[in-house]
Amino acid sequence: MVTYGELSAFDRMAADARLAPDLERRAAMSEMAAVEIANYGRLAARLGALGVDPETAMKPYIDVLGAYHDSTEPRDWLEALTKAYVGDGVADDFFREVAAFIDEPDRQLVLDVLHGSRYQGFAVAEIRAAITADPKVANRLSMWARRLVGEALSQATRVSGQRPALIALIIDRAGDQAAVQQLFRRMTIAHTARMSAAGLNN
Amino acid sequence: MVTYGELSAFDRMAADARLAPDLERRAAMSEMAAVEIANYGRLAARLGALGVDPETAMKPYIDVLGAYHDSTEPRDWLEALTKAYVGDGVADDFFREVAAFIDEPDRQLVLDVLHGSRYQGFAVAEIRAAITADPKVANRLSMWARRLVGEALSQATRVSGQRPALIALIIDRAGDQAAVQQLFRRMTIAHTARMSAAGLNN
Repeated sequence: MVTYGELSAFDRMAADARLAPDLERRAAMSEMAAVEIANYGRLAARLGALGVDPETAMKPYIDVLGAYHDSTEPRDWLEALTKAYVGDGVADDFFREVAAFIDEPDRQLVLDVLHGSRYQGFAVAEIRAAITADPKVANRLSMWARRLVGEALSQATRVSGQRPALIALIIDRAGDQAAVQQLFRRMTIAHTARMSAAGLNN
Repeated sequence: MVTYGELSAFDRMAADARLAPDLERRAAMSEMAAVEIANYGRLAARLGALGVDPETAMKPYIDVLGAYHDSTEPRDWLEALTKAYVGDGVADDFFREVAAFIDEPDRQLVLDVLHGSRYQGFAVAEIRAAITADPKVANRLSMWARRLVGEALSQATRVSGQRPALIALIIDRAGDQAAVQQLFRRMTIAHTARMSAAGLNN
C-alpha cells in the first residue's frame, strides 16, 4: 500500500505541479514528486528482496488509491498544496502508527519514506501567505481539507473491508480495541494540529 | 534553454508514464522523469550562482518547448518511449555540441545533465522487443520519429530567429560556416545511428 501510494503520489503531484503560478513553485512541487518516486524505488526493491513481485503486491491498492485521487483532483495551486499537506499528512500518520507494528528493517524503511518537515514547511508557508493575502481562502481550503479527509476515510473503509489482514495486523499488534481507538485519537490530534499550523480550521 | 528543457521534460515524461502497460514500466519512466527534475535543480542553482533569476532565464524558451511538446503528444507507450529516446537524443547531441563552446564549469554541468546510456538502453530494448513482436511497429515508429525531428527542427528555427545570441555563440565559436555545417552533419550521423540501434529507419 505504501509502495503504490508512492507511485501514485508521484503521478498526481507531477500533474498538480502544472497548477503552480510560476516556474519556481512548479519546480518545487516537481521536486517533491521526485522524492516520491525515489521512495517507490526503495520500497519496490525491498518487496523484491522479500521475494514479492511489486506489481502483485501493489495491485489490491490501485483502485482505492485511484478513487481517492480521482475524487480529490485539485482545481488550483492552493488545493494541490493543501492536498499534499493534509492528505499526505494523514496518510503519513497512519503509516507511522502501522510501522510500529512491523519488524525491522521494514519499520525503519516505512518511517524513512514518510514526508520530511522541509516539504511540510513549504506547504504551510504557501497556504499561510495565501490566507494573509485573502482571508476568505482559509474557509475555502478548510472545507477542501475536510473533503480530503472524508474521501480518505471512505477509501480506508473500503480497503479495510477488502484487506482484513491489514486490520488484523493493527488490532492484533495494538493489543486491544482501546489501543486501536487511541491510535485513531492520536491521528485526530495530529490532524487538528496540522490544520492549525497552516491557519486552517477543522 | 537546457534548464527549462529539464523542467518541461519532467512534466511531459511524468505524464507519459501513465501510458505504460504495467506498473514496473510506469515506474521506470517516472524514475527517468525524476532525473530530469534533479538536473533542473542543479542548473537552476548554477543560474542563481551566476546572479541570473532562473524564471527570467527560462522565459524565452517556454513557448517553443511547449509548442514542441504539444505537437508531439504521444498516443501510446511506444510513442512515448520513442519520443524520450529520439527527441531527447537529438536535443542531447545539440547541447553536447554547444557545450564545447562554453566555458567550464558550465560545460561540464551541461554534459552531466545529458541523458545517460542506461536510459537509452531501456528505450532501445523496449522498442526492439515491440518490433520483434510485431514488425509493423517499426514503420509506425519510424514515421513518428521523423515527425519528432521535424517538429524539433521547426521549433529550433523559431528559437534561432528569436534568440540571435544563441546562433552567434555557435557560429562565432565554431569558427566558420563550414564548421557549423559539420556540427549539423555530426548530429545527423548520430541520429541515424540512434535510429538503427532501435531498429528504426530514417
